[in-house]
Amino acid sequence: MKLETMQSSEKPLAERVADQITSLIADNKFQKGEKLPNEFQLAEAVNVGRGTIREAIKILASRNIVEIRRGLGTFVSEKTGLTDDPLGLNFVEDKSQLALDLIEVRAMLEPDIAALAAKRATKKDIEKIKQACKAVEEKIQRQEEFITEDIEFHEIIARSSKNQVVPNVIPVIHSAIKEQIKATNAKLTEKTIVTHRAIAEAIAQRDYEGAREAMKEHLRYNQEHIERVVKEKL
Amino acid sequence: MKLETMQSSEKPLAERVADQITSLIADNKFQKGEKLPNEFQLAEAVNVGRGTIREAIKILASRNIVEIRRGLGTFVSEKTGLTDDPLGLNFVEDKSQLALDLIEVRAMLEPDIAALAAKRATKKDIEKIKQACKAVEEKIQRQEEFITEDIEFHEIIARSSKNQVVPNVIPVIHSAIKEQIKATNAKLTEKTIVTHRAIAEAIAQRDYEGAREAMKEHLRYNQEHIERVVKEKL
Repeated sequence: MKLETMQSSEKPLAERVADQITSLIADNKFQKGEKLPNEFQLAEAVNVGRGTIREAIKILASRNIVEIRRGLGTFVSEKTGLTDDPLGLNFVEDKSQLALDLIEVRAMLEPDIAALAAKRATKKDIEKIKQACKAVEEKIQRQEEFITEDIEFHEIIARSSKNQVVPNVIPVIHSAIKEQIKATNAKLTEKTIVTHRAIAEAIAQRDYEGAREAMKEHLRYNQEHIERVVKEKL
Repeated sequence: MKLETMQSSEKPLAERVADQITSLIADNKFQKGEKLPNEFQLAEAVNVGRGTIREAIKILASRNIVEIRRGLGTFVSEKTGLTDDPLGLNFVEDKSQLALDLIEVRAMLEPDIAALAAKRATKKDIEKIKQACKAVEEKIQRQEEFITEDIEFHEIIARSSKNQVVPNVIPVIHSAIKEQIKATNAKLTEKTIVTHRAIAEAIAQRDYEGAREAMKEHLRYNQEHIERVVKEKL
């Protein structure tokens, strides 16, 4: 206990400066994609040495809060603060169970998210959902890998829910699943086309119960598929 | 696009070393709480200079993957890889809406989590849930702040679901709510006691539909409460 308190009060200077810059970004003093002032200016503004600023910037880059572009400067990252593995899923011990646990969490979240999207999506959102649905189908028809398009489809629905937390959670879970179950989607092509269409259609028609049920159905067969894959692996 | 590719291929050496050490921890070469080899040994093992190791350790500390304890050495963090704000919620723009969005996500997750806990909790888990329930009540009776105990109650239920992802998601969402809605829980004491008891009781009796409904009810009045608080703020 004592140790922990000591830790936080004695946080290294560079980390405290990093936290300060983070607050500036969080308070919209700097926007996504915007270029930060240079080292000299930041050092002067925060009243620390340039070495400390340089260290703070490195910490911020490792947290995906800023992006260092060689020769161009430091910019506020577009995916502000989302690290590659924000939920520490790399550290989950039972990896073969992890894929099943991830789909279990998707089954909790995504049917409700689809229902919210049916209620709150703008006309523009609905267009994007239809396009994303089509993009998956085209990849499938060309017998190409479609994981990226598939994630995009679910992310657009997440954004259409207008819940600000959901679009930060969904990509994390999807990427983790992609990591766990690589190159197994090929077998799921037909069912993917049918159920994706049903989801997109229900959202377009503002049928929120229909959207919820279509997403449940979509995840149900995904779950069965992952269960088979995990069993084969064991 | 070109920039991004350049970025990742030209990741600074210290970050690549940090990733290497992360993999060692993720693969259980080092356990939670275990002390890492010292700088000399790590430098030799990874075949880089001590300066790079020191920088890599700082990156890992800023990601909560390791903890530097003065005079004692570097240890694998107990909350491996979970940063203070893993979902980048500090960067959500509409803060007054954020609390409502967070409770919306809780309402998606926690009723199902309670149902899973009712199915999968061990006898020991059930004892812990009952104790945590009692701890909240005691704080309420003494008219003391009970947020920490409240979060603990929900975290134990999350762990009892035996889903490995859920215990990483729930604390993040709860801490964010705590941040948004400070010191408003005082008014919710009676309903908290009643609904917490109903949740704990249903889980203890393996009544998973009951647990789901009790959690829904608990979150419903929490949502109403937060809606009132947000309206007052506006």
